[in-house]
Amino acid sequence: MGRWGNRVTGRQKLGRSVGDCGDITMNQKAFQDYYSEELSYCYGCGRLNEQGLKLKSYWDGEETVALFTPRPYHIAIPGYVYGGLIASIIDCHGTGTAAAATYHAEGREMGTEPPLRFVTASLRVEYIRPTPLGVPIEIRGKAKEIKGRKVVVSVTVSAHGEMCAKGEVIAVQMPEHMMPRNNDCRNITSESDNKPVTTAGEP
Amino acid sequence: MGRWGNRVTGRQKLGRSVGDCGDITMNQKAFQDYYSEELSYCYGCGRLNEQGLKLKSYWDGEETVALFTPRPYHIAIPGYVYGGLIASIIDCHGTGTAAAATYHAEGREMGTEPPLRFVTASLRVEYIRPTPLGVPIEIRGKAKEIKGRKVVVSVTVSAHGEMCAKGEVIAVQMPEHMMPRNNDCRNITSESDNKPVTTAGEP
Repeated sequence: MGRWGNRVTGRQKLGRSVGDCGDITMNQKAFQDYYSEELSYCYGCGRLNEQGLKLKSYWDGEETVALFTPRPYHIAIPGYVYGGLIASIIDCHGTGTAAAATYHAEGREMGTEPPLRFVTASLRVEYIRPTPLGVPIEIRGKAKEIKGRKVVVSVTVSAHGEMCAKGEVIAVQMPEHMMPRNNDCRNITSESDNKPVTTAGEP
Repeated sequence: MGRWGNRVTGRQKLGRSVGDCGDITMNQKAFQDYYSEELSYCYGCGRLNEQGLKLKSYWDGEETVALFTPRPYHIAIPGYVYGGLIASIIDCHGTGTAAAATYHAEGREMGTEPPLRFVTASLRVEYIRPTPLGVPIEIRGKAKEIKGRKVVVSVTVSAHGEMCAKGEVIAVQMPEHMMPRNNDCRNITSESDNKPVTTAGEP
């Protein structure tokens, strides 16, 4: 059993293949699914942003994991994933990991009040090798340090079991004045484009 | 006249308001519009990626500038721009600036052969204050160092004349083996989704 909770089975901890991650994602509720409605419109990971990427992050032992399959148009050059997309998923997986780790450090279940939600103070990405397009990429995070309202998260991005990028997110708890009110969210996505984007076929 | 060329008028150099940037973008061809077809599918700045952001970067004296209006769904929380989008435009403006600055350093016009195209080795973003949604954001770059195949570019992102984020891109010339062949590009965007995204109303 992982130090961070009882959500992960021994088998899931042993393996790091995409198949094993699939098991993890089927057996848990994602961090982002605990966010309150008004905090669920993030383009990268909000479950209510219909045009967004809808990244979902989970515990896997002491690490966190997310799987994401870039869409065919998320390219830098043909065959390779766009670096800005990689930065985006590192960002969202980083802030999600910061929230989950802080709930854990405080001995609280995710989703309990008051909410813990993080914004990014800084983001650093090193692109190690081109990330191939057309396969799921695996994003792994680890909270390296929790200090006051700040959490430092290291993140790796791999495809075919090979690390393609690594990064660091410094996440800070969202200041109270930034917390949206519920009615701030009306029509966020319905006004977003004249011709709305469907998310059918989304990974 | 700017040291970097004769493309910018005195008036354009003096001003940094969005209106002045509008003049610049009307009077020049964007860096990205010089990229060859097979290198023009980048999600962030490729002119041929119909689903992409189509960022366009220009000279403004010794600096480079781009204007971009995030779409309404590019949000982190209501009212504020998604940090991953900011990282993405810093990335593309950085590599575009690297290419333009290297052409200039070699005394060459952009678009001349052999092509100079850059990929990102590392990206760093500091988020200084939340970036308001609904207004054009101004991205400014400067090549700090050109050394061999590597260019270091500093970038700022501002809205309403206030700096919201700053970053640094270390760009390296794309290795020859990564250069796509022309037929690699077929159907990149036409196969991209079952329900294609329109770019109508794009900024």
